[in-house]
Amino acid sequence: MSVSSAENAPHIGALPRGPLGTIADVPGVTVGHCTLDEGALQTGVTVIRPHGGDPFRDKVPAAVSVINGFGKSIGLVQVEELGTLETPIALTNTFGAAAVAQAQIRAAIRANPRIGREWSTVSPLVFECNDGYLNDIQAMAVGPQHFDDAYAAASAEVASGSVGAGRGMSCFDLKGGMGNASRVVEAAGQRYTVGALVLANFGRLPMLTLDGVPLGRMLSERAAATANASTTTKPEQGSIIMIVATDAPLDARQLKRLSLRAAAGLARTGSVYGHGSGDIALAFSTAYTVPHEAQFVTLPPLLADERLDPLFRACADSVEQAIVDALWNAVSVTGRDGHRRLSLHDSAPDLSQLLNSAR
Amino acid sequence: MSVSSAENAPHIGALPRGPLGTIADVPGVTVGHCTLDEGALQTGVTVIRPHGGDPFRDKVPAAVSVINGFGKSIGLVQVEELGTLETPIALTNTFGAAAVAQAQIRAAIRANPRIGREWSTVSPLVFECNDGYLNDIQAMAVGPQHFDDAYAAASAEVASGSVGAGRGMSCFDLKGGMGNASRVVEAAGQRYTVGALVLANFGRLPMLTLDGVPLGRMLSERAAATANASTTTKPEQGSIIMIVATDAPLDARQLKRLSLRAAAGLARTGSVYGHGSGDIALAFSTAYTVPHEAQFVTLPPLLADERLDPLFRACADSVEQAIVDALWNAVSVTGRDGHRRLSLHDSAPDLSQLLNSAR
Amino acid sequence: MSVSSAENAPHIGALPRGPLGTIADVPGVTVGHCTLDEGALQTGVTVIRPHGGDPFRDKVPAAVSVINGFGKSIGLVQVEELGTLETPIALTNTFGAAAVAQAQIRAAIRANPRIGREWSTVSPLVFECNDGYLNDIQAMAVGPQHFDDAYAAASAEVASGSVGAGRGMSCFDLKGGMGNASRVVEAAGQRYTVGALVLANFGRLPMLTLDGVPLGRMLSERAAATANASTTTKPEQGSIIMIVATDAPLDARQLKRLSLRAAAGLARTGSVYGHGSGDIALAFSTAYTVPHEAQFVTLPPLLADERLDPLFRACADSVEQAIVDALWNAVSVTGRDGHRRLSLHDSAPDLSQLLNSAR
Amino acid sequence: MSVSSAENAPHIGALPRGPLGTIADVPGVTVGHCTLDEGALQTGVTVIRPHGGDPFRDKVPAAVSVINGFGKSIGLVQVEELGTLETPIALTNTFGAAAVAQAQIRAAIRANPRIGREWSTVSPLVFECNDGYLNDIQAMAVGPQHFDDAYAAASAEVASGSVGAGRGMSCFDLKGGMGNASRVVEAAGQRYTVGALVLANFGRLPMLTLDGVPLGRMLSERAAATANASTTTKPEQGSIIMIVATDAPLDARQLKRLSLRAAAGLARTGSVYGHGSGDIALAFSTAYTVPHEAQFVTLPPLLADERLDPLFRACADSVEQAIVDALWNAVSVTGRDGHRRLSLHDSAPDLSQLLNSAR
Repeated sequence: MSVSSAENAPHIGALPRGPLGTIADVPGVTVGHCTLDEGALQTGVTVIRPHGGDPFRDKVPAAVSVINGFGKSIGLVQVEELGTLETPIALTNTFGAAAVAQAQIRAAIRANPRIGREWSTVSPLVFECNDGYLNDIQAMAVGPQHFDDAYAAASAEVASGSVGAGRGMSCFDLKGGMGNASRVVEAAGQRYTVGALVLANFGRLPMLTLDGVPLGRMLSERAAATANASTTTKPEQGSIIMIVATDAPLDARQLKRLSLRAAAGLARTGSVYGHGSGDIALAFSTAYTVPHEAQFVTLPPLLADERLDPLFRACADSVEQAIVDALWNAVSVTGRDGHRRLSLHDSAPDLSQLLNSAR
Repeated sequence: MSVSSAENAPHIGALPRGPLGTIADVPGVTVGHCTLDEGALQTGVTVIRPHGGDPFRDKVPAAVSVINGFGKSIGLVQVEELGTLETPIALTNTFGAAAVAQAQIRAAIRANPRIGREWSTVSPLVFECNDGYLNDIQAMAVGPQHFDDAYAAASAEVASGSVGAGRGMSCFDLKGGMGNASRVVEAAGQRYTVGALVLANFGRLPMLTLDGVPLGRMLSERAAATANASTTTKPEQGSIIMIVATDAPLDARQLKRLSLRAAAGLARTGSVYGHGSGDIALAFSTAYTVPHEAQFVTLPPLLADERLDPLFRACADSVEQAIVDALWNAVSVTGRDGHRRLSLHDSAPDLSQLLNSAR
Repeated sequence: MSVSSAENAPHIGALPRGPLGTIADVPGVTVGHCTLDEGALQTGVTVIRPHGGDPFRDKVPAAVSVINGFGKSIGLVQVEELGTLETPIALTNTFGAAAVAQAQIRAAIRANPRIGREWSTVSPLVFECNDGYLNDIQAMAVGPQHFDDAYAAASAEVASGSVGAGRGMSCFDLKGGMGNASRVVEAAGQRYTVGALVLANFGRLPMLTLDGVPLGRMLSERAAATANASTTTKPEQGSIIMIVATDAPLDARQLKRLSLRAAAGLARTGSVYGHGSGDIALAFSTAYTVPHEAQFVTLPPLLADERLDPLFRACADSVEQAIVDALWNAVSVTGRDGHRRLSLHDSAPDLSQLLNSAR
Repeated sequence: MSVSSAENAPHIGALPRGPLGTIADVPGVTVGHCTLDEGALQTGVTVIRPHGGDPFRDKVPAAVSVINGFGKSIGLVQVEELGTLETPIALTNTFGAAAVAQAQIRAAIRANPRIGREWSTVSPLVFECNDGYLNDIQAMAVGPQHFDDAYAAASAEVASGSVGAGRGMSCFDLKGGMGNASRVVEAAGQRYTVGALVLANFGRLPMLTLDGVPLGRMLSERAAATANASTTTKPEQGSIIMIVATDAPLDARQLKRLSLRAAAGLARTGSVYGHGSGDIALAFSTAYTVPHEAQFVTLPPLLADERLDPLFRACADSVEQAIVDALWNAVSVTGRDGHRRLSLHDSAPDLSQLLNSAR
């Protein structure tokens, strides 16, 4: 699905990546995409399953950092209160979020017919970005079936680029979308993996910093020289969703701390968390689950807070790398009203030279 | 629609009420209900319009206090960040929230076709409680039309009781639902109105305190004597949504302070904000609006924080009164699987005597 | 030290209390007071030790709810981030907090000379209320020795009333101060104790509700009849600090939930969390500790969130009872400039009759 | 006082700076330092006056973002609740914060003898970092006089480097301390200034990124080659305080948004907000004041939220530049137990060449 560049993207930072280089390097995590690519409809749904079971019965410790709350995500109130998520994590476009939430509810009821009867209700978790530049978002084309298809497609082979919820997204005035990365660290004498999946849809071109190189400025200046700089004065209307997974044993308070470090990785790409950008990070741990309707919850020994620094670094690096991954793997897309976003590679066929010249 | 008791409910506290005794005592605020009463479907939608215009173009200063976040409300992230709401406030059942959010989006686009194109997207605001005891919530019967109908019905004549979103709600093991109240206060030499509308769906009978009278304990003991006390040991699975309006000139930070005082009124009815109860308060001001796409926002002189105490008291009293109002105006309802909730009046035909005997 | 009334205060709610009826019913918790009673100096320091050891080496899981942040407490930032406290909990007057913080730092260094050298620094935890009506707060009379004396005096015999930090405090225009209570509950098949200690310094007389009886209104009306009602129109400038201890195994997120339920108990006494009142609750658990400089933190099985309701109720009842306890055990005090606060018993010699007549 | 390098530091980003290049480019803002440089005592106090008047009578709109709350700052609770600050902003070492808070209280009482009597109390605002590597922090050498001296020294000529509270601070294993910067932007057709003052005391050398150049890695590798890399494996125990001033008309909610953008500038220097680092940003506006004991508060027209992006960028750039400024202007310092921190210039005499070679 994704079209990789012949060359690999630069490796961000000094920490090693996992074998897949995706969020699925965290054992048990799988991802599925459903992509809509039909003329003016350039959108989709992506589903992240935190484990192979039923997250309503085996809830997943999780926490959210709202870095900039210009956003319409669904389900954050309960994550904040209870420190768990109880459905898969879904991503889609802004006006598709409600349809996906309905699909999440129906899927949970199918698996657990006591929900909303003997049991409490379920809190669907849906994140969104606005893909309205390429996608006819007013058509509200995303429906429950697209969630079900993405869910059914979930596997450990995770595509990046112009796929799933990332199909219609723009990033730094280029084609953005779905990005993945992972880092492996040692903390308290143990090896842990941190994986990130981003839905990248933010930024104006001059802001783009790629692995420390002010690539956006270079491309903007070149475009200005050829009288092409049409879009750079409009304010940002994008967003980024950053999903961070780890197998380290952390509780919700610690996961909140971890999730905030996504802001550091995001900043290093050039973002200042613009007013119109819904910048939200969620972190979850696969080290244990919280059973529905338990008396007591038994946790593994938790990593002490003073051992978190390697994970913080891995989070920032993974998020930065995942944003690069989204740009690197994107393909150019034409959508509604002839709007077109060039991929990074199509915008800068001499990308490798540009990056090398700047070092 | 609502069936008032012959006698009025006790007046909570020492502050006077407005002429209507509803949230519509705040000038410009209107409310509409759409009620579904069809066998196992006992649910509905309620819409609060903060003013007569288009809240997307003229946004309304607002803030939220999440007292207990076991809840699935939609749209709070952006209210917290930007301090405004930009759609009417909708209330419905938990599994209807997404459908109502979609209807909110469509309505906003109809009024503003540039949304999601030249303009940013819109953040629908939908609150919910779980009416699954009386209502077949799994049927997901609420659809976009019900939002539209409730919106179209909005007026300053506001019904309370088993109507709109309150149709299927339970409160203190009695029939709960929609409640209203208002208080008029003087602050900084000016008269201001505070109005409250609640969707009351919380609590177990023994907890109920009505105007300081431990009515729930009295009714529980009577029921126990007649071997009727079947439900009181189960944990709470309810919720309460508390919408507070005022014409006092307050900014979002002050409205957040005001909204938290709903917790005081709620506590005086017997609630301790139970684990499973999504207890959420939103406060908004009608004193000014924030235009879409402005350069500057001009505010009226704001009431100083040290003058807020009368409003805090009015908020607590209004919310307590609105909960009483919900109980007082409810009618007994039979819903799915023959489940039945008796109204307060049907549970205690000698209610006036009980209340008087306890004073 | 405290002068108990001949009759016991009414018992709030249906839950049983522990054997002592103080926060020290939670095993391991001890409290010490140092009282300054010298003319215009009517103030003091109270210290709560969460366990018999060194809380820097064995940190205590804790969380805070700031119900109204008109307050100057010291140390909350780190509790919020790390979910632990690492010094005893100290209470004093507003302008004494810094001196007590210094004393906390010196005491921690004495016990752990590596603090601020090989080890990180220590975060002193000091809460405060403004006792400036009775106490010459500008004199800044509280010094490090008073903290040390209160610490040295800590025991499981806990006095209430006009002692320690409570010496100069006012509550509902009456003499306020130090109050204690406890409740014993069953949750998930186990017995747990919740204890509360309050520093009560809030409210105007007409607001006072004692065990559901509008006692403040009754006393105000009587006073008005005798042309004595001088103070009731001034805004509140008080505060209340509510310390909640439990032996239930809870983590910081759950303790934050628990601490918020103090707001319910506070509201039932008549408070609406007035603008000028710093209303802050801290909850801690004695079920485990978090070692300084660990690799991993091993927790006992945590009580599941859905089993928390009995603890929530115990928290609200304990806080309400502790406020009553503060009023009940206070003695009348004369302080700076001849200011005098009558105790509840001195204000209402016929208190028992009043309470009985209202039932 | 500060020793500037012969060459100027690189200019961060594309926005122009103000004439002074310090926080005092925001009209009315002044800064004073008091430096202790006596053997093992290497510490100090810095005071920022937001305007030339009395901030208790004319309070200043302000807000705080706690990016990482491993910190002991005093006074944040009330800023969060009321959206104003009411004393000058003081910075010092961790164990000096309480003494400075006392000095703040005494100064406020001197100016306003009704504080704590007819008027409410005052909330001192003191930020801190741990300078314990160079400074004998256990000596608790900072006293009230040092605050008074720093206050008296306040002027628009603001020194950076190893002065005031920055005297003993370390940053990236180099000498850190006091840094300043400013940016001038246009928003909504008006020119506004954003100024930043940082107390920089965070980071390990390999993390340092200076204007996009991985300088820390370069210096670490060089040091490793000469077997000098002794300290890089220890976790961070530092902190950074970032004070952001602007003359743009913003309210407290908007200032909170602005203050968070300090996290972006901080991240670009290499920080991931390490566990042991108290990373706190405060933003205030000089565009208006809030009078003590008003009935109403009159605000100027506020900049609309959708016009904030230039200010967000200016905040991030100013904070990054101010960190560079702290490093650039620091002098090498020897303190307690012979501990020594080399300045950036002393660590890398060939600094200009290194920076140029990397471009």
